[in-house]
Amino acid sequence: MSKKYVDLETLKYILYDIHKLEELLSRDRFQEHDMESLNLFIDSVKDFSDRELYPYLQEMDANPAYHKDGTVIVHEQVQKVMHQSGEMGIISACFDYEDGGLQMPISAFQAAVYIMDAANNHLPGYPSLTLGAAELIIEFGSQVLKDKYVPNMLAGVWGGTMCLTEPQAGSSLSDVVTKATPTNDGYYKITGQKIFISGGDYKGAENIIHLVLARIEGAPKGTKGISLFVVPKNRLKEDVTLEYNDVMTVADFQKMGQKGYCTTHLGFGDSDDCRGWLVGEEHKGLAQMFLMMNGARIAVGRGAAAIAMAAYRTSLQYANERPQGRKLSADGKKNPTEKQSLIIEHPDVRRMLLLQKSIVEGSLSLVLLASKYQDILTTATSKEEKEKYHLLLEMIIPIVKTYPSEAGAESVDNGLQVLGGYGFCADFTLQQYYRDIRISALYEGTTGIQSQDLLGRKVPMHNGKGLELLSAEIVKTIIAANNDEELKPYAKILGDKLELSQKILSHLMPFALKGNYERYLADANLFMEYMSIVVLSWLWLEMAVDAKKALGNSDRKFSKTFYESKIHTMKFYFKYELPKTNSLAESLMNNEVVTIKNEKEYII
Amino acid sequence: MSKKYVDLETLKYILYDIHKLEELLSRDRFQEHDMESLNLFIDSVKDFSDRELYPYLQEMDANPAYHKDGTVIVHEQVQKVMHQSGEMGIISACFDYEDGGLQMPISAFQAAVYIMDAANNHLPGYPSLTLGAAELIIEFGSQVLKDKYVPNMLAGVWGGTMCLTEPQAGSSLSDVVTKATPTNDGYYKITGQKIFISGGDYKGAENIIHLVLARIEGAPKGTKGISLFVVPKNRLKEDVTLEYNDVMTVADFQKMGQKGYCTTHLGFGDSDDCRGWLVGEEHKGLAQMFLMMNGARIAVGRGAAAIAMAAYRTSLQYANERPQGRKLSADGKKNPTEKQSLIIEHPDVRRMLLLQKSIVEGSLSLVLLASKYQDILTTATSKEEKEKYHLLLEMIIPIVKTYPSEAGAESVDNGLQVLGGYGFCADFTLQQYYRDIRISALYEGTTGIQSQDLLGRKVPMHNGKGLELLSAEIVKTIIAANNDEELKPYAKILGDKLELSQKILSHLMPFALKGNYERYLADANLFMEYMSIVVLSWLWLEMAVDAKKALGNSDRKFSKTFYESKIHTMKFYFKYELPKTNSLAESLMNNEVVTIKNEKEYII
Repeated sequence: MSKKYVDLETLKYILYDIHKLEELLSRDRFQEHDMESLNLFIDSVKDFSDRELYPYLQEMDANPAYHKDGTVIVHEQVQKVMHQSGEMGIISACFDYEDGGLQMPISAFQAAVYIMDAANNHLPGYPSLTLGAAELIIEFGSQVLKDKYVPNMLAGVWGGTMCLTEPQAGSSLSDVVTKATPTNDGYYKITGQKIFISGGDYKGAENIIHLVLARIEGAPKGTKGISLFVVPKNRLKEDVTLEYNDVMTVADFQKMGQKGYCTTHLGFGDSDDCRGWLVGEEHKGLAQMFLMMNGARIAVGRGAAAIAMAAYRTSLQYANERPQGRKLSADGKKNPTEKQSLIIEHPDVRRMLLLQKSIVEGSLSLVLLASKYQDILTTATSKEEKEKYHLLLEMIIPIVKTYPSEAGAESVDNGLQVLGGYGFCADFTLQQYYRDIRISALYEGTTGIQSQDLLGRKVPMHNGKGLELLSAEIVKTIIAANNDEELKPYAKILGDKLELSQKILSHLMPFALKGNYERYLADANLFMEYMSIVVLSWLWLEMAVDAKKALGNSDRKFSKTFYESKIHTMKFYFKYELPKTNSLAESLMNNEVVTIKNEKEYII
Repeated sequence: MSKKYVDLETLKYILYDIHKLEELLSRDRFQEHDMESLNLFIDSVKDFSDRELYPYLQEMDANPAYHKDGTVIVHEQVQKVMHQSGEMGIISACFDYEDGGLQMPISAFQAAVYIMDAANNHLPGYPSLTLGAAELIIEFGSQVLKDKYVPNMLAGVWGGTMCLTEPQAGSSLSDVVTKATPTNDGYYKITGQKIFISGGDYKGAENIIHLVLARIEGAPKGTKGISLFVVPKNRLKEDVTLEYNDVMTVADFQKMGQKGYCTTHLGFGDSDDCRGWLVGEEHKGLAQMFLMMNGARIAVGRGAAAIAMAAYRTSLQYANERPQGRKLSADGKKNPTEKQSLIIEHPDVRRMLLLQKSIVEGSLSLVLLASKYQDILTTATSKEEKEKYHLLLEMIIPIVKTYPSEAGAESVDNGLQVLGGYGFCADFTLQQYYRDIRISALYEGTTGIQSQDLLGRKVPMHNGKGLELLSAEIVKTIIAANNDEELKPYAKILGDKLELSQKILSHLMPFALKGNYERYLADANLFMEYMSIVVLSWLWLEMAVDAKKALGNSDRKFSKTFYESKIHTMKFYFKYELPKTNSLAESLMNNEVVTIKNEKEYII
């Protein structure tokens, strides 16, 4: 099994053995799937990625998408991957049969697209956003809208986007000013500008279906006055031919990385002829968009985790092939007549590799955990189950968006460093991964926004019920690890960290209760980092518990070394990463106020 | 005073008030310099940078240096900056009068070149390396070599390089195989390949003088058999005309950043006609090269500190101009009818800005501290003073190379994040700084190598005398801060961290004493980070002590806010950065061994 850009063994191990996908297959929704068919799907996506994605990784970086004559020129693989993603059922995988989908578990789907991300992160965004846009129409749109737009989107023939950001508003959606004026013909006239629209237009695309946030004339100010519209680039004339819908590609954004995935600036209604169709109810646009946003945030985390995986595999291969330097002998000297060591033998290089491995595989487990929660939520039969997994999912979403993005970038940074000077050179892909992954902490809500979401919304929701449920999940693993002599000490440490998180919250909560939200949230980023490390430590301990069990079995699926390496990596994470919680806690509970603006400006 | 890319006030404050350059001016060597003349020099370099460097920053990134027809095409500013650096005395500034220099204090010179680095980091490398190469010839070369090469180098007419790395050896200099064969004509025939040679060749350069490490036939193996040679691209024929010396530019390296500063692959003696002249004694090449290497390492730290400064200034300007979002009111909500806030008002943005400010200005202080040590060392009159500052300098060099490179990259990362999605876009310089600074942790010995140097060589040297001296310097500041009620608590914390460093060393030293150097050095990187944070905390406390004094004076040089902002930034560093020492100490004293290779390979 080639591991050039992805470790398929570990992917399947985490999907099947750790997150136990098989247990879900008995649920009604997934009746027509079994392990064999899912494996087949995943393997076919791997073949597809080997063939159609990975070979174009460097090419797409060297030849960025660019704006020309009102459209965007992209690499020819874009169309190919869109179409084949349609044909292979990648876009439609998780939708209901009645909507043209395959009712595949989201976990299996995410595992498959993760492979595509790892192979070439410039491409999966196109089908991925199309899927998200289709999801919105399916979930909230009328039957007419569904019939008109969804089939071509699922087939990969039409692209889809989500249009939120405007030049003057940035992440502040309450300041959206794109206007929707009602007409008597069932549509609204749309006028406005949207920026940072991924996959917003590309040459040769028959049509692009934009899901646009806009304000109906007279709507309330703020986020409560935002509605959601389907605004196709080309509208259907008498349901047959396509006619230009006054959606102009004004410009594109040239970026530091992910250059093959175009980012556009769109103008709606410049000639007063742009039509949009309301999706669902008036003024409910933001809530609707956020349903899709959850998926988009998991997708960003998945993409970042996958880029970090590819970078790890690349630097590991280099470390296993490159001879340089020698080990120190007992007199503290090196013997120049000795053969050179491979760089993987040097402890510092091993530290950088293990750091990557722990972040990369831990992030993958996190992504598939979130997907599992989605699967359970989708198929929940009781109100209790629904509520539980709804809350667990809400808790984990800001983390699954953020940790792979932030720690993933650090991971790639270490991968680059493993290559020394070559890591900085264009001939090697590490520097590309370094640039590509950096967008993840910005996409779909920056790390700052995710952190405010975690501490400001998710922790307090339902009186802390979400955090309680998450903690209970973590405690299950702690109990399991406690039954193993080797793992007991790690279980103890994780328990302590969980307790410390409560202490931190007890320190912060009074500020919120006194109405000082600014103070409560000032260090939300640090709290995010704290909780992320706790969650990752949990996922690693969970893997170690499973690996220990497997090692005691004679009919293990993978090699002895495979399982031992998971336990080893857990130990690495607990030695080098988990201690960071201490300094984070110290900063979080330090009462010095230095980041809140008062009369004088000291940041000069 | 425009602060577009550099804060000249802070630069002068740290140079004059913190590191007290004036006190050095009474020394014999600097007699002809006074504050006025040095200020004039620094201001003229700022004007020069405004005019000839900063305007070309983005252009040089967009049009990288490239190899064509056996030479390297560079931006036309390269020649201009080389020549003017010669004319302005930038290259010759610190050399003796008798060698054509100006005997300027190194601190003043470093402050000036820091401005150039901040303006456009693609350019100062050319004159800077030329200076380093000239320094080697002046220090160790014969009068003949000096007369032949130095004047044109100091004038910026000829470039200079240092050639260490070879394809098969990387950082492992004991594996250098470039060969020097003696002849009867006073020169050696040189054959071999050198890679990663910065400024190694560029079109239009009349000549490039390479300082090359090579092995004389029959020399001992390892680093003890390496000698140093002057190998000009064009040799002097009868001391008058230039004749090609068989130094071929084989290729260049295209890089992720610093694209205007060419990196070349050179072939020596392909036609068996490459002549080199021995510098100093046989087999002493490495020790000689390391004299220059110290300067080069400070220069890398200086460059990184300067790039981070430019990125900070840019993101600060953006934060002061960009409106987005609103403050939370006492009910935890935002009022959409309120005017938008500037993003600098959001605590999380303030945290990112203060993080930058603390790293950037602290790094600048560190660079100028190292330069001060160099100045004192150069002018020391007693053996004691010489030894003291030699040891202090040796201690600080790996740190001044590493901290600005590593923390500086993190600083720029935060600057990019301040701009949100725009930070990732090519129209803004943040993404360029992000790419440019990344080479700093690789240049002139990676962070791994610096860390081994710090823990493996510098800490144990002279039985720990260097660390003792450095600690004594830190204690002086702790005592001064202890006399101020406001600063007392910070003094206490820093004292504790200094003590903890001793505990860490007591934990590690036994491994070295038992001959287990691999274990002793395995976490050298973490120790580097620990010591760096201690040193930076010291430098910030030192600044706070001075600022407090100035605030008590009525005839302050700078505004009240200026001094208060320094104290504020110190508090930030102590709240958010210094606590990291705790987790580092925890990892360093954890006895679990996970990064040392044993029989089984778990990194898979």
